[in-house]
Amino acid sequence: MLENIRIVLVETSHSGNIGSAARAMKTMGLSQLYLVAPKQAVDEQAIALAAGADDVVKNAVIVPTFDQAVANCEFVIGTSARLRHLQNTLLEPRACAEKAVVFAKHHKVAIVFGRERIGLTNEELLKCRYHLTIPANPDYSSLNLAMAVQLICYELRMAWLEENKQDVDLSLSSIESTYPTAQELEYFFAHTERLYQQLGFIQNQGVMQKLRRLYLRAEVEKNELNILRGMLSAVEKSGNFNRE
Amino acid sequence: MLENIRIVLVETSHSGNIGSAARAMKTMGLSQLYLVAPKQAVDEQAIALAAGADDVVKNAVIVPTFDQAVANCEFVIGTSARLRHLQNTLLEPRACAEKAVVFAKHHKVAIVFGRERIGLTNEELLKCRYHLTIPANPDYSSLNLAMAVQLICYELRMAWLEENKQDVDLSLSSIESTYPTAQELEYFFAHTERLYQQLGFIQNQGVMQKLRRLYLRAEVEKNELNILRGMLSAVEKSGNFNRE
Repeated sequence: MLENIRIVLVETSHSGNIGSAARAMKTMGLSQLYLVAPKQAVDEQAIALAAGADDVVKNAVIVPTFDQAVANCEFVIGTSARLRHLQNTLLEPRACAEKAVVFAKHHKVAIVFGRERIGLTNEELLKCRYHLTIPANPDYSSLNLAMAVQLICYELRMAWLEENKQDVDLSLSSIESTYPTAQELEYFFAHTERLYQQLGFIQNQGVMQKLRRLYLRAEVEKNELNILRGMLSAVEKSGNFNRE
Repeated sequence: MLENIRIVLVETSHSGNIGSAARAMKTMGLSQLYLVAPKQAVDEQAIALAAGADDVVKNAVIVPTFDQAVANCEFVIGTSARLRHLQNTLLEPRACAEKAVVFAKHHKVAIVFGRERIGLTNEELLKCRYHLTIPANPDYSSLNLAMAVQLICYELRMAWLEENKQDVDLSLSSIESTYPTAQELEYFFAHTERLYQQLGFIQNQGVMQKLRRLYLRAEVEKNELNILRGMLSAVEKSGNFNRE
């Protein structure tokens, strides 16, 4: 479904940004890159910064106009740091990604990023069904283009993983650790209490209550409990106090 | 509260990445940058890529060791693409940010990013209470360092905005416990290791690694740590082996 979502970069000035954006896309599982009239050709700088995502750069579709980049898309989302007044169509990255992933099941989605300095024109923004804005620091909201692409692609991946969660849950439960029984834990607590009473450290109930709270909260695993009991035995063997 | 969260970059090879990371931080409202033994000095390249975030770069605290960068932090979070086996301490960015923002109300939090190629060492990861992993594309998970910083800082900002949205839940924050610093925990681990080596129980690194994992996961509180250290002292006083 992520293959139905394309990233469109409009009139990018620096080819390095194209490469970095491609890398950002691929780390999150996106591959469809469209370039509208890039100011610099896709050169070695773009390939270098793409690192292992050079395939995304090389397969990029280059078109002369915004309209051509989005022509066959049912949903076009434009990014902008401005246009806060577009209340009804404004989305933050998380909500945008959730919508986009649902759309992308049956439709083609374009997420369009504007020029490094001036973003998208008003005319271009008016062609977008939704408008995406990143809630950056109002005192310094200057995200690099590829960074913005990274954030949006990350949210797309998170939304996509969420959609596919059922499978993930299954694989998680199969690698669960083994936990001791309540009885095994009680033996450990009793052993601890007995030993440290003999050592004169435990003189009232407070200490054991706190230790119980700590170890229960930690959800001690079986192998960890073996270590803790081994430590008690090691102390017993070393000392010259009475053993029971 | 975001000022209680620091970003730590360990042995960064390229100063440009330091600049880009600073810019990423500032766009999301973070400012505390710590550099552990950077391979390249903070130079013009770093300042250039920081753009309007040169203040973050110039105010960065440079320290020679990992321990010094996190010494006064109660919560240390290490990032890693590996260590999927650390099931119980593993967090994804969103959950991590939610936790960090709550911790940061009363404590200092460090989020540590490793070297560009090899990340953090196992030794460093074992000093971290939580482990943060970005659920990237398994076929190509090579996020640029600054991109990873951008994603995490974005999630921190989102969590922070969310916290500020709800009127502060006073009941929760007022019953919060006090946690030991990373340094206090290290003293405890060192003390445990020394004692149980003398007792002949600890003969290799495996035991300490498991104990670290257990106690970091448990989020040991200050009063609990006092008990655990008291237990070590009680054993020392009872035995007839050497004390240091």
